Amino acid sequence: MQRIAVDMDGVLADVVERFLEWDERDHGVRQTIEQVSGRTEQEAFPFVRKYVYTPTFFRGLKVMPDSKEVLAELNARYDVFIVSAATEFPQSLAEKQEWLTEHFPFITWQQIVFCGSKKIIQADIMIDDLFKNLDHFQGHSSLLFDQPHNARADAGRHRRVYNWKEIASILL
Amino acid sequence: MQRIAVDMDGVLADVVERFLEWDERDHGVRQTIEQVSGRTEQEAFPFVRKYVYTPTFFRGLKVMPDSKEVLAELNARYDVFIVSAATEFPQSLAEKQEWLTEHFPFITWQQIVFCGSKKIIQADIMIDDLFKNLDHFQGHSSLLFDQPHNARADAGRHRRVYNWKEIASILL
Repeated sequence: MQRIAVDMDGVLADVVERFLEWDERDHGVRQTIEQVSGRTEQEAFPFVRKYVYTPTFFRGLKVMPDSKEVLAELNARYDVFIVSAATEFPQSLAEKQEWLTEHFPFITWQQIVFCGSKKIIQADIMIDDLFKNLDHFQGHSSLLFDQPHNARADAGRHRRVYNWKEIASILL
Repeated sequence: MQRIAVDMDGVLADVVERFLEWDERDHGVRQTIEQVSGRTEQEAFPFVRKYVYTPTFFRGLKVMPDSKEVLAELNARYDVFIVSAATEFPQSLAEKQEWLTEHFPFITWQQIVFCGSKKIIQADIMIDDLFKNLDHFQGHSSLLFDQPHNARADAGRHRRVYNWKEIASILL
């Protein structure tokens, strides 16, 4: 059975939506996706470092459309692991596990990995929105999940996917 | 640079000492190491499942003798990761990271992995006290850290080590 390593932030969890909400709260104007596309999160959201260290930030994230249904199907056919670079934000660890348990109850604790660097992860397929995670991945297939911060970059040797239905069409 | 995956409980952190203390508190008599050797933790400590779900259990563990000094030296010569099967006990996640930061401040967040199953871990060397972690490890060298629960088992294809000085003599 092939192993898939699935990222959380920007893949299962919609961090950009929350950045936009909190940025609007702090600056009075909501930016559009077009305005933040092609910019790093630090460029697009001046207080982003404050946001990701704020308790409740991760716990309240919205679930990406169709991810529940598609991940449930993947979970029946693949050896699925959820791999989140979370140790940079220790306060997020318990929140992230609670969030997974609430929204993806079919994912067991055995299938969860919270790490810093993903270079220690051994899998066949990786789904992630960050080049720094995909670029040293040694499995056979790496899918770049489209997000504003990576929108104008060349996907390189990775395959860009735009939503979970597209992931389903590739992997199911 | 070779990568080492180092376990926490029973390798860096002395869980047995705390089991003995709490078991004595609950039963009035302190068991000896000899009495608990060769028995599973469930056999040796009736309330062990309660203990490991108790907040403060992991935060207060003692550091294994010589582990600070040896791990610091390993950290200079190897690509060290601390890999702990912690997602079974979500309340332990923040405690474990705090504990590492206090006792092993040279270990960065990039070097920490909290997981359930360790089969996703890619490394050259693994140091662990549990056969379930070592047995499916695919690196070239697996060290079984001697603990009462594994004391009377055949180390099999792994090499049994009794303390951190012995690890130093093998790896440094």
